[in-house]
Amino acid sequence: MDVEIITIGDELLIGQVVDTNSAWMGKELNNLGFEVARKITIGDDRDELLSAFSTALSRVDVVLVTGGIGPTKDDITKKTLCEFFETELVFNEDVLSRIEVLFAGRNIKINELTRDQAFVPRDCEVIENTTGTAPITWFERNGKILVSMPGVPFEMKTAMTRDILPRLKARFSKDIHIVHRTFSVKNYPESALALHIEAWENALPDFIRLAYLPSPGVVRLRLTARHSDLTLIETALEKAEQSLLPLLGDSIFSSSDAPISEVLGKLLKKNDLTLAVAESCTGGNIAHHITSISGSSAYFLGGVVSYSNEMKRAVLGVSKDSLEQFGAVSREVALEMVNGIAKLADADVAIATTGIAGPDGGTLEKPVGTVWIAVKMRDEVRVELFRLGKVREANIQRASNEAMLLAAEMIELKFR
Amino acid sequence: MDVEIITIGDELLIGQVVDTNSAWMGKELNNLGFEVARKITIGDDRDELLSAFSTALSRVDVVLVTGGIGPTKDDITKKTLCEFFETELVFNEDVLSRIEVLFAGRNIKINELTRDQAFVPRDCEVIENTTGTAPITWFERNGKILVSMPGVPFEMKTAMTRDILPRLKARFSKDIHIVHRTFSVKNYPESALALHIEAWENALPDFIRLAYLPSPGVVRLRLTARHSDLTLIETALEKAEQSLLPLLGDSIFSSSDAPISEVLGKLLKKNDLTLAVAESCTGGNIAHHITSISGSSAYFLGGVVSYSNEMKRAVLGVSKDSLEQFGAVSREVALEMVNGIAKLADADVAIATTGIAGPDGGTLEKPVGTVWIAVKMRDEVRVELFRLGKVREANIQRASNEAMLLAAEMIELKFR
Repeated sequence: MDVEIITIGDELLIGQVVDTNSAWMGKELNNLGFEVARKITIGDDRDELLSAFSTALSRVDVVLVTGGIGPTKDDITKKTLCEFFETELVFNEDVLSRIEVLFAGRNIKINELTRDQAFVPRDCEVIENTTGTAPITWFERNGKILVSMPGVPFEMKTAMTRDILPRLKARFSKDIHIVHRTFSVKNYPESALALHIEAWENALPDFIRLAYLPSPGVVRLRLTARHSDLTLIETALEKAEQSLLPLLGDSIFSSSDAPISEVLGKLLKKNDLTLAVAESCTGGNIAHHITSISGSSAYFLGGVVSYSNEMKRAVLGVSKDSLEQFGAVSREVALEMVNGIAKLADADVAIATTGIAGPDGGTLEKPVGTVWIAVKMRDEVRVELFRLGKVREANIQRASNEAMLLAAEMIELKFR
Repeated sequence: MDVEIITIGDELLIGQVVDTNSAWMGKELNNLGFEVARKITIGDDRDELLSAFSTALSRVDVVLVTGGIGPTKDDITKKTLCEFFETELVFNEDVLSRIEVLFAGRNIKINELTRDQAFVPRDCEVIENTTGTAPITWFERNGKILVSMPGVPFEMKTAMTRDILPRLKARFSKDIHIVHRTFSVKNYPESALALHIEAWENALPDFIRLAYLPSPGVVRLRLTARHSDLTLIETALEKAEQSLLPLLGDSIFSSSDAPISEVLGKLLKKNDLTLAVAESCTGGNIAHHITSISGSSAYFLGGVVSYSNEMKRAVLGVSKDSLEQFGAVSREVALEMVNGIAKLADADVAIATTGIAGPDGGTLEKPVGTVWIAVKMRDEVRVELFRLGKVREANIQRASNEAMLLAAEMIELKFR
């Protein structure tokens, strides 16, 4: 069953907001066997909306729309839907009482704009919005479905999870199964990986498709199987996996598309280990990724972002001599940082990073992109030098990933 | 001049990758006076590609395409472009020598897949890719332009900045100017803000459009003016700003769409102040945002991510009594954390956060979303309680924003 997603909002077109909604929706829909055929983003413009609704409904049976239903004037999705479906806005007491309950909990007074949210199109089903004021509406015409939802990510996610996905699932019997399997691979640039596994790729059955998803330091291989026979799919994916593993060995660091922060978290938890980090060039990004995972407090003790040399000395105990003799970006300082944080936090595993993220601060000897990463696991320490690129944002992310990869590798080697 | 953006890749449709490219492109194009009329995302599928190229070129004069030109088999954009423009692939020695130079710098051997990247469509202009191997191609037919670029963000950004934007700018004389002005507003929910400034909004001239962009703790108001007369635009925007300021006063914390981390950074720099942070529930996210800004080492000393109570005690000097009597999530602990980090880092401004990000760990008395934020500026300290929502990711971001807002406010009050 094909689905199209329409995201509405000038802010998406002019790049003031990055659309993360449609990616989340695509993932969830896919897990249920729906295929997103196309995503389209348009501005808050009547003609564009009418044309997009019409084209999408002519192509597929299910159209999911987000955005443009806030209380303010620039939002025109609701009234344009009325025009498209030749209906009108009517006042809905149920919607108003839900808004009243919601606002009572937040201790906010309802104003007239919020009250206007209770005007909803006739000739559609109104689905409860449990987390916001914008009405969620489900239209059906000639066996085709169009659902309009808020653009606020957690309102959309709540509505999808609670109502829309279960309804779509119940409604459409899945004649085709879609199953993905992803392997996260380190140590290989994309083209080298492709050549290395070429024979394996050629041997995949027709109903399995392979995609390469390169990101800083990691290539994810995604197998997508589409077939009416679920057993056939599972047997074929299992066979593909079993023949891939010996080809790549330790370079496969995860048989999932979980980010490395989650893979590392699971390894720590499984082996009952604690983690602490000392970050210079990654500036808190490793700690942020680790703590974005719920439950991380079970294994993450904390960290120090030692941006200044003084913090490196005072908190982590890096010696003045090393800073002067070798510089803050050096093997010696990385080593003292990792020892310092391990001791300070009394952690089983410790990570330290020091480098030049750029765009300024590089020298001939230590150009932008020079990063030292140290990982300590109990008595064992590894220190590695990376020569990354020139882009600050990419360097911070890549250095964070490499550091977490190294830590995961050391835990795996020890506890496998 | 209208532009359409086509982003290609199955990974975008199934949500394995969030498309950040098109937002960046939209922003840059807009700054040059181009308007993105529509963005469309499709999979690596011949028929979809042909249909999207054809529809987009029938609607607008400039189509920018990203993705699907990597070295691996799943990428079919290059050959489908040949089919669409009725041409064929030919070997290009220049492209190969650029790849050789690039690889020599990285110390990687060129393999046959990489070598195949030097096959490019005939009857198009090949634009140098200075950061990767995929060829960038510029097609022109009947006065319409289609440009194909890599999907890797920094390769796309480099090509856009270096070649494609300057060429588009030189090519199209701008008969219409587009100017945006954004005000970042705190203290108001979206609908309350809309009512508060309703008369002001109604008095805006026809050629200025207002949009509300709500995000955690902040509503950005964006004015977009479109007119052939640039002086008229600037006068009108100035007038709008001058009448908005008295309405909102201190609630406008920035007359730009810069993120709060950048606003705070500028304030620190301007007033020659240093910053340090002690993060519990925000887990390094504040430090990450602060250090994402290049040049932040001039004012950011560092921070402590004190996830465990032991780290709070050992590093920040939070007392055992306070932790036991009031709990880690309390006014008292927030206060001791902020005093601890200010002293430890010898910072002029210090921020501390402690709270329950969720989804677990809440109690009746301290439900998920309870967050204490303390900011110290020299001898002045403010501690505030926030009751946020239930979504971990949103709580972390909201608490980070609120903490940086509070710090910016205290600096502004002191140094205005």
